[in-house]
Amino acid sequence: MRQDSEDICAPLEIEDYGIQTMPDVSPPKWHLAHTSWFFETFLLKAFLPGYQEFHPRFSQLFNSYYNTVGPYHPRPRRGLLSRPTVNEVYLYRTYINKHITELISANDLGSMDEIHNRIILGLNHEQQHQELILTDIKHIFANNPCLPQYRKLPPPISQPTEHHWVSYKGGLYSLGHNNSTFAYDNEGPEHNTYLYDYSLGSRPVTNGEIISFIEDGGYGDTRLWLSDAWRVVCEQGWKAPLYWEKRDTEWWYFTLAGPRKIDINAPVCHVSFYEADAYARWAGKRLPTEAEWEIAARTQSIEGNLRNSGYLQPASSQQGGHLKQMFGDVWEWTQSPYIAYPGYRQNDSTFSDFSGEYNGKFMSSQIVLRGGSCVTPKDHIRATYRNFFFPADRWQFSGFRLAKDAQ
Amino acid sequence: MRQDSEDICAPLEIEDYGIQTMPDVSPPKWHLAHTSWFFETFLLKAFLPGYQEFHPRFSQLFNSYYNTVGPYHPRPRRGLLSRPTVNEVYLYRTYINKHITELISANDLGSMDEIHNRIILGLNHEQQHQELILTDIKHIFANNPCLPQYRKLPPPISQPTEHHWVSYKGGLYSLGHNNSTFAYDNEGPEHNTYLYDYSLGSRPVTNGEIISFIEDGGYGDTRLWLSDAWRVVCEQGWKAPLYWEKRDTEWWYFTLAGPRKIDINAPVCHVSFYEADAYARWAGKRLPTEAEWEIAARTQSIEGNLRNSGYLQPASSQQGGHLKQMFGDVWEWTQSPYIAYPGYRQNDSTFSDFSGEYNGKFMSSQIVLRGGSCVTPKDHIRATYRNFFFPADRWQFSGFRLAKDAQ
Amino acid sequence: MRQDSEDICAPLEIEDYGIQTMPDVSPPKWHLAHTSWFFETFLLKAFLPGYQEFHPRFSQLFNSYYNTVGPYHPRPRRGLLSRPTVNEVYLYRTYINKHITELISANDLGSMDEIHNRIILGLNHEQQHQELILTDIKHIFANNPCLPQYRKLPPPISQPTEHHWVSYKGGLYSLGHNNSTFAYDNEGPEHNTYLYDYSLGSRPVTNGEIISFIEDGGYGDTRLWLSDAWRVVCEQGWKAPLYWEKRDTEWWYFTLAGPRKIDINAPVCHVSFYEADAYARWAGKRLPTEAEWEIAARTQSIEGNLRNSGYLQPASSQQGGHLKQMFGDVWEWTQSPYIAYPGYRQNDSTFSDFSGEYNGKFMSSQIVLRGGSCVTPKDHIRATYRNFFFPADRWQFSGFRLAKDAQ
Amino acid sequence: MRQDSEDICAPLEIEDYGIQTMPDVSPPKWHLAHTSWFFETFLLKAFLPGYQEFHPRFSQLFNSYYNTVGPYHPRPRRGLLSRPTVNEVYLYRTYINKHITELISANDLGSMDEIHNRIILGLNHEQQHQELILTDIKHIFANNPCLPQYRKLPPPISQPTEHHWVSYKGGLYSLGHNNSTFAYDNEGPEHNTYLYDYSLGSRPVTNGEIISFIEDGGYGDTRLWLSDAWRVVCEQGWKAPLYWEKRDTEWWYFTLAGPRKIDINAPVCHVSFYEADAYARWAGKRLPTEAEWEIAARTQSIEGNLRNSGYLQPASSQQGGHLKQMFGDVWEWTQSPYIAYPGYRQNDSTFSDFSGEYNGKFMSSQIVLRGGSCVTPKDHIRATYRNFFFPADRWQFSGFRLAKDAQ
Repeated sequence: MRQDSEDICAPLEIEDYGIQTMPDVSPPKWHLAHTSWFFETFLLKAFLPGYQEFHPRFSQLFNSYYNTVGPYHPRPRRGLLSRPTVNEVYLYRTYINKHITELISANDLGSMDEIHNRIILGLNHEQQHQELILTDIKHIFANNPCLPQYRKLPPPISQPTEHHWVSYKGGLYSLGHNNSTFAYDNEGPEHNTYLYDYSLGSRPVTNGEIISFIEDGGYGDTRLWLSDAWRVVCEQGWKAPLYWEKRDTEWWYFTLAGPRKIDINAPVCHVSFYEADAYARWAGKRLPTEAEWEIAARTQSIEGNLRNSGYLQPASSQQGGHLKQMFGDVWEWTQSPYIAYPGYRQNDSTFSDFSGEYNGKFMSSQIVLRGGSCVTPKDHIRATYRNFFFPADRWQFSGFRLAKDAQ
Repeated sequence: MRQDSEDICAPLEIEDYGIQTMPDVSPPKWHLAHTSWFFETFLLKAFLPGYQEFHPRFSQLFNSYYNTVGPYHPRPRRGLLSRPTVNEVYLYRTYINKHITELISANDLGSMDEIHNRIILGLNHEQQHQELILTDIKHIFANNPCLPQYRKLPPPISQPTEHHWVSYKGGLYSLGHNNSTFAYDNEGPEHNTYLYDYSLGSRPVTNGEIISFIEDGGYGDTRLWLSDAWRVVCEQGWKAPLYWEKRDTEWWYFTLAGPRKIDINAPVCHVSFYEADAYARWAGKRLPTEAEWEIAARTQSIEGNLRNSGYLQPASSQQGGHLKQMFGDVWEWTQSPYIAYPGYRQNDSTFSDFSGEYNGKFMSSQIVLRGGSCVTPKDHIRATYRNFFFPADRWQFSGFRLAKDAQ
Repeated sequence: MRQDSEDICAPLEIEDYGIQTMPDVSPPKWHLAHTSWFFETFLLKAFLPGYQEFHPRFSQLFNSYYNTVGPYHPRPRRGLLSRPTVNEVYLYRTYINKHITELISANDLGSMDEIHNRIILGLNHEQQHQELILTDIKHIFANNPCLPQYRKLPPPISQPTEHHWVSYKGGLYSLGHNNSTFAYDNEGPEHNTYLYDYSLGSRPVTNGEIISFIEDGGYGDTRLWLSDAWRVVCEQGWKAPLYWEKRDTEWWYFTLAGPRKIDINAPVCHVSFYEADAYARWAGKRLPTEAEWEIAARTQSIEGNLRNSGYLQPASSQQGGHLKQMFGDVWEWTQSPYIAYPGYRQNDSTFSDFSGEYNGKFMSSQIVLRGGSCVTPKDHIRATYRNFFFPADRWQFSGFRLAKDAQ
Repeated sequence: MRQDSEDICAPLEIEDYGIQTMPDVSPPKWHLAHTSWFFETFLLKAFLPGYQEFHPRFSQLFNSYYNTVGPYHPRPRRGLLSRPTVNEVYLYRTYINKHITELISANDLGSMDEIHNRIILGLNHEQQHQELILTDIKHIFANNPCLPQYRKLPPPISQPTEHHWVSYKGGLYSLGHNNSTFAYDNEGPEHNTYLYDYSLGSRPVTNGEIISFIEDGGYGDTRLWLSDAWRVVCEQGWKAPLYWEKRDTEWWYFTLAGPRKIDINAPVCHVSFYEADAYARWAGKRLPTEAEWEIAARTQSIEGNLRNSGYLQPASSQQGGHLKQMFGDVWEWTQSPYIAYPGYRQNDSTFSDFSGEYNGKFMSSQIVLRGGSCVTPKDHIRATYRNFFFPADRWQFSGFRLAKDAQ
């Protein structure tokens, strides 16, 4: 799994590793080092006797935001670091891997639960960053007037997919992760929630549907937008999803394979919550709550929803049963603010350890997304997973699906 | 009720009417004009045949944010308007009152529901602004080095109030306003929600308790603060609630009666959600959800909770039964983001009329407060009322009460 | 002369006294108080035994920027002060006047040079603020959508004035004030400077000529603008001088008498140095140096140049001899950065007293203007006077005249 | 000379080539490409028939600010470009060199003045950027917590140099370049200027002297600073020259050889005009005008002033006659704003060609520096050279020398 991160970076030039196009984006080099720092800090320093850190500056340089660990290099300045070089970062990764192996060899992990747990957490953490590397590379390349190509991709096999409504009965449901397998703490505890009868759209909203919204003046109609959203639309001059560009009469978008004509049958991607919410209002519908989404998702086979691997771009549906494309095309914005489930961290509410800083301290002003996108590692996807971003964020592979109340 | 707005302004000098100390604050003159504009726009222009507007510029100058009505003067520039003068604004108010009376006389309101409804809404709207006038005057005076006094206030009769926990059983509850009396649309529809067993603190957190938090280093302990909160704490240099100042060894705060020594038995006021949340984490507790608060509040008599009128400053509890000071001291931050209740505006989701712009378009990134403060008009207080502000806002009369899960 | 300041404010409403429309603008009330503070601080406290200050907060509130006197209220927050009221400020002025009179009566001023000098300086300082009050009121009114009128003005008697070139011989000239009458320290010492043969335009550039520049695309032609200027043009969206507005096909501007059609024969006003410089480049000419201007101005009669008093708006020339309208219409931008003359403050270079802070510490990044405008007190005008503002400033009554090298 | 640019970059890692630590800094890769773009745009496209540009995007990417050539990539975003890669930029350089050679071979340059002139200008332009590459690398490395070393440097041979005053007679002087050899247009035309008797310090102000200023509280004494300067000092928190750091009781600075103890005998470097001006005021002296500096410099041998090559850091004086270290240690701030000499561009005042954009459009708000620094190419140094930067700029190798009026 550690190797996957390096494989993702294989097509990059050395120069690509260091770029930060906006504060939200981290240079690929930083991701490679930070995921190693995570193991070094929370695993090796804690459990490997006599461990010598690789470099005295790295504990500060590659700490993302863990205040309890110490000070950290300011996020907006991650792109100003030519040193350590890419080569040195790869040596760092090798050094960390060697010591993890040493730690594993030296312990009978069946009986050493905390070491085991931290390795698992570290690997899941690394998978999150694998997705972010691809997300950030897309932003880095899209901002380069030379429009570099990350990898060749085959043209999409695009077919229209009929949209229909799938109904669910309301009632009292149990929601959240039951801890039988790995999950982040914010996915639990399992708890009751009451739902009313509702319906979900059978597939995500498509590029073609967004074009209808654009052509109907949706981006300029103040009545469709939340107050905060309208301010952002005006300030940023939004006229279309991120990475879209109109060439003469045709819409194009930037993909990891370079600029392409828009596939009108594919799910729309790189929209903010604000845009998803405005589209839903325009359509006379609404976004689902995260509870509605999760209840529906439980009955779906993840495998049945996943697309052929490695496409790196949402595409029109090939698979799927009742509901289509819930996993592996786009993260789906819900209408639910990201807050704690009832009973979350009941006995240790402070952010006094790395775990407290991992998820809990971000429970403010962000919105939950569900599902998983075409750049999410496959075995990182599950129905209870709560992704979260700010409502104006668009550089993630984020789309949405409509919902409505029962008539 | 219209006269109440003017009575509130009676102690002001003409110069005080025009000041805007930050974008969130509006000049008192603007509040007086805007509440009249509301009647002019949504009542008189709509229902009084042949109505002539008072001044051609006012429809733009005193529109707050109603995009559907037309363009509006930028909010941060409300304090740059010396004209219309205060006297002209009072003439505007008289003109509007006269025409409302004329409209009422000309119609049999028992059978004219929309006119009746808009008058009621306009009066409730005006009551909201009566509270804002006092809130904003406090900010205006506190930012003046001459520290003016709005009105003399008697010294508080300060007594310590014992704190205990009041327990509530979980289960499926019905929440929200049932429409039998006036309420804003965001208070409904009535709907089911599931609660776990919980306890609420018998009274709000006091100034004395906040001093303990301060002295324990709470404002400097990153482990207690949400990520967004910590950024604000550092950027703004928060060390205590708004309007607090340490003189030698004693804490003082600014009140509408000028600077005073802090009353350690009174509820803390002028804290943000971020501070309330950090305090709760420090105390090993949490903030209540708005559902928990409302269920508990239903069994409380509003009158039994209200303090003697006109004090304009939270004080230690004189009255109250089971739970104390739920109404009329401080608005209480909950942990609940301000979002729509299930079924809200099901048939008209766009913000296409004034009502849609009133509450719905603010359902993003804000937090619900419940109860009512010492500057809230008494008959404006009810258990279902949902007030909402951004999590960093502190200039409202906002405090909080602790909650905890059942053991 | 102190009374003149109050006369200027006579047409104002109380509300007008407190407005600050941008950091450069000060509220009229502040000007009235600050000019009194100047006498209180540098005259009464220094020379009147037993003098009691009027109010303990005023020394900070009405200090403009004199670091050596103590801290001062931040400039951008001058408009947030409703107190002291206008009435209190007038009482402050009366109090100061009474004590100045007392000081004068108690001293034989013929033998008390420093007291005499400071009174003279204080009166000249007050005249500068009399001009600023009118300048700032214009900005305050122009930013009010109600477009208030400061005073009725007769329509201009507009006649075209022929433009010709007036030639001057080069050589070594003596420049600067010779100290025989009052002057600011920055007007001296008198010193030699070498000039080449040059010509000055016989009158300032007119509104009509600026319209030609506009219509020729001057505001959009990057080749005409200094690098810094072009950035400002783009950021601020300049398309015409400040206060200009195109209504259908006609240009209007805002005057102290309200909006009026532009007088094409009047000197252009409210242009920045950047605009003056770009116009000159477009015209194939240049701006004069301050030395060229002063040498030419010496031979001009100030009275012969002054227009009828009280017009408050530049107008087409009625008077003048060789060169016209050098005094009393518009301040004329030169091409000269505002720096010290040779030998300036040779023996006390630090800004250690009020005099050092008066002029010397602003000798950086500003540009000299010469002459005097229609709002400059008449007896404040002289050929050696060096006014200075930043090159992007436009809210002063500033225009310009062309110059060229001898052929 | 073209090769020199590449030699300067030889010690860099590929990652170093792409960093931009602030908008003023350009990545080394950008400098290498831009200097080639300069030849491509103004030489090859203009004079080599059939020339094919290397890459269609480069004309925009590597245009610095030439509006007349077309749009350009925004300066603050130069560090966001991973592509073209470093290797591609070197290929670009080779391609340009090849075509310059081809152009030279194809023409009899003795009779082709414009081609010759542009080649000379292009080479001088490249020399300016050679200095900037080293200046920018220093900033890039100093901002990296790993504190990389550009090159090993020997320890300085540090000896105190006595300071004395060298007097010059006033009178009418001729100033500026007389066009007998290459010079930028802003160095002429030659013209008369009048000077008073003055004295210059025999050497630049040293680090040791600045330490005295620091220890005397100079950075905190408002009376020493220009108004604009004091604002910058407070906002930026200046306490010492750029790159200085106090470790316990000793001052260190960052050099191209990494951090070193400060050499108290070497000229101070990396100070702004504001700091130079404040120091001079503290010392009871002033900065020289550019005319005073140039008149004095004419009698100095450049070679006699130059230090041993390649030291890349100002050092204490080894050579020099009457006046020491005028060339080759630090650029010396004068007190003169950067403006046109009399008669500059008399017949073509618009910035309508590349030459007009080279120097003329920057004649606003900048200050002249004279001399040349330890990173200036030796044959680029001359007595008439006018360097210019904004008064707050500190990342250049800038110091200063004192002046005083004759007694």
